[in-house]
Amino acid sequence: MIIIGELINASRKAIKAAIEAGDAAAIQQVAKDQAEAGADYIDVNAGIFVGQEPEYLKWLVETVQQVTDKPCAIDSPDPSAIEAALAAHRGTPMINSISLEKDRYDKLMPIIAGTQMKVIALCMSDDGMPQTVDDRMKIADTLVNGLVKNDIPVENIFVDPLVQPVSVDKAFGTGFINAIERIVAAFPGIHTACGLSNISYGLPARKFMNQTFMTMAIAKGLDGAIINPLDKKMMANIIAAEALAGRDNFCMNYLKAFRAGMFEG
Amino acid sequence: MIIIGELINASRKAIKAAIEAGDAAAIQQVAKDQAEAGADYIDVNAGIFVGQEPEYLKWLVETVQQVTDKPCAIDSPDPSAIEAALAAHRGTPMINSISLEKDRYDKLMPIIAGTQMKVIALCMSDDGMPQTVDDRMKIADTLVNGLVKNDIPVENIFVDPLVQPVSVDKAFGTGFINAIERIVAAFPGIHTACGLSNISYGLPARKFMNQTFMTMAIAKGLDGAIINPLDKKMMANIIAAEALAGRDNFCMNYLKAFRAGMFEG
Repeated sequence: MIIIGELINASRKAIKAAIEAGDAAAIQQVAKDQAEAGADYIDVNAGIFVGQEPEYLKWLVETVQQVTDKPCAIDSPDPSAIEAALAAHRGTPMINSISLEKDRYDKLMPIIAGTQMKVIALCMSDDGMPQTVDDRMKIADTLVNGLVKNDIPVENIFVDPLVQPVSVDKAFGTGFINAIERIVAAFPGIHTACGLSNISYGLPARKFMNQTFMTMAIAKGLDGAIINPLDKKMMANIIAAEALAGRDNFCMNYLKAFRAGMFEG
Repeated sequence: MIIIGELINASRKAIKAAIEAGDAAAIQQVAKDQAEAGADYIDVNAGIFVGQEPEYLKWLVETVQQVTDKPCAIDSPDPSAIEAALAAHRGTPMINSISLEKDRYDKLMPIIAGTQMKVIALCMSDDGMPQTVDDRMKIADTLVNGLVKNDIPVENIFVDPLVQPVSVDKAFGTGFINAIERIVAAFPGIHTACGLSNISYGLPARKFMNQTFMTMAIAKGLDGAIINPLDKKMMANIIAAEALAGRDNFCMNYLKAFRAGMFEG
């Protein structure tokens, strides 16, 4: 599983305050904690700072990379903010994210074309959020083909079919996981990724529901996740589901997690 | 989800003792507890009593049916024991189970042919346990066609593709859940069911692994399970997974379970 640690996001109070205060140590602690907990990418998001987003996003990248070798997932809908952050990034980052929204697509594609960057491809178009599996596949098809034509290797693409709340429509859970399954089958070598907490919007016991949904998505082929890697229960679910999905030789990772006390309580 | 409560099994010490002592009250308490916890069928198994199995199995059916309206799952590989138990059973039971093993198949088929009984169809043949998805599909195909030819409606068949331990071969988890998916796609209206604790054989934190695997199997279409319905964590997993799989209108069952405290701790 490719874990994208989601905690350095300015929509969180402590992160917003740390950015405003220029408190590098606070940001760096969150980066280190996530890397140690298993994050493969450290997401950085300064989206709430209208006008200052490019400057702050660049600072976040520099600040994070001073303390960890993990690459960043540069998280913005704004190509100019992404470009500013890229100027500071060492190594190969992930771009979070491109979509089929025309303005975003047209401006971001030239920046990533022909590079080795990883890119999250959101199944979103100017027509809004997709509802059915077929809606998602149609967008995914256009988006993946567009990326490949622009010399992004399929192995560097992470399609996110977009989770919608099951409380709104009982078909939204299967719509998402069945899209994962079809995307993995349609584009050999591709990855999938998502932030999935939307699934439980409007329901109680959300953490439990999110964990359960993660396990279901892994059963269908999900291999990337934008999550809080410090959430031990979520990580325990992922580790067990990965072993059961045949991705853990001799259950070594599962056994290691057990010895580390991940499955207690 | 169709829940088959597994607790009245003579391989469990307390049940063995209750059967030997003719302690109907002890058996009846376990039957009532399971029915209240959500069991749709009460499994009865007296398999350890060689020679006395027909007599004891019949007594279990009578004893259980004195206190609950739930039908029994008559659990034996021995057609003569099943026949004895059937003689006592009121209503429409489940037979657990038929398989493609020739002796079992030939003797049990005439007993169930043309009836409305539910039947668990184990993907097992005289060649032993299936290893791959294709092995399982080959057996399932022969078995389901045989049952349908003998006037068992496809809606009354519960195929069990047989779980094998993921510690033995990392492909055994996906072999099982992918078989579930293919069976559901191949035979519209059919059910699937399994006892899945084998998946975690040889590993620590088995309960957690079993719950996780249940969730994954539901994602692939599993709609029946032979479990301990008094295991609240397992039931909570099933309830959440069912809502996420689109089987719970307006998440009513999930919300009810939440209010009953199922997701606490």
